[in-house]
Amino acid sequence: MNDVLSWVNHIALAVPDLNTAAARYRESFAATVSEPQPLPDHGVTVAFVTIANTKIELLEPLGDKSPLASFLAKNPDGGMHHICYEVENIIAARDRLMAAGARVLGSGEPTIGAHGKPVLFLHPKDFFGTLIELEEIN
Amino acid sequence: MNDVLSWVNHIALAVPDLNTAAARYRESFAATVSEPQPLPDHGVTVAFVTIANTKIELLEPLGDKSPLASFLAKNPDGGMHHICYEVENIIAARDRLMAAGARVLGSGEPTIGAHGKPVLFLHPKDFFGTLIELEEIN
Repeated sequence: MNDVLSWVNHIALAVPDLNTAAARYRESFAATVSEPQPLPDHGVTVAFVTIANTKIELLEPLGDKSPLASFLAKNPDGGMHHICYEVENIIAARDRLMAAGARVLGSGEPTIGAHGKPVLFLHPKDFFGTLIELEEIN
Repeated sequence: MNDVLSWVNHIALAVPDLNTAAARYRESFAATVSEPQPLPDHGVTVAFVTIANTKIELLEPLGDKSPLASFLAKNPDGGMHHICYEVENIIAARDRLMAAGARVLGSGEPTIGAHGKPVLFLHPKDFFGTLIELEEIN
């Protein structure tokens, strides 16, 4: 049974300027985009595009140590940054993934993510260039 | 009302080798991955990872003129390739997008996509490096 890849919580898109991106999504698609929310502890400002079956998260770097800095240095226009899957038990998911040979970024311990829930990121080299976030939802 | 960005049909991930990627997703996540399906007319071989709320499409180049060739030349490990949104009327969506200044790739006319439905791609430069596919579902 697949209990890790069951639900895409969000698709994160890095953008160089969040107000410009939010305006473009509103004007081009008549989309509903939330007000930008600065998250200084995470080095990002975030806004959500309303979608029925998942979330689109627009991310702009915030501060000097943003985790988006290197991505935007490589992709100055922005681009698709990561996919976040919901998991029921992040420790169990991590342990099974590590047993299968996948690498977890950072210390290996979950941190509290931008939505206030425990998160981990998997090494994109282990998943063909796609950065995967796991977020514990319960 | 947002009638274009309402439902993510799939998130497409380009991979250099589909069998390797499918095996990794099965082994690491205990995911269900469909058998690879060659689509020579589209220059891709495709497999789907089963997810509850959307689809993850793994794409491998097929043939000499694959639309993935330049992406994989730039990203040899693979990476996140595009997001596909469902639309009810692709001509109406296209016309509104073009009126808002967005560029449609190719001739501007819908083609029949990998799932047998009319599709269009929007220029990633107009959406901050994210390639957006629109697929008419009705």
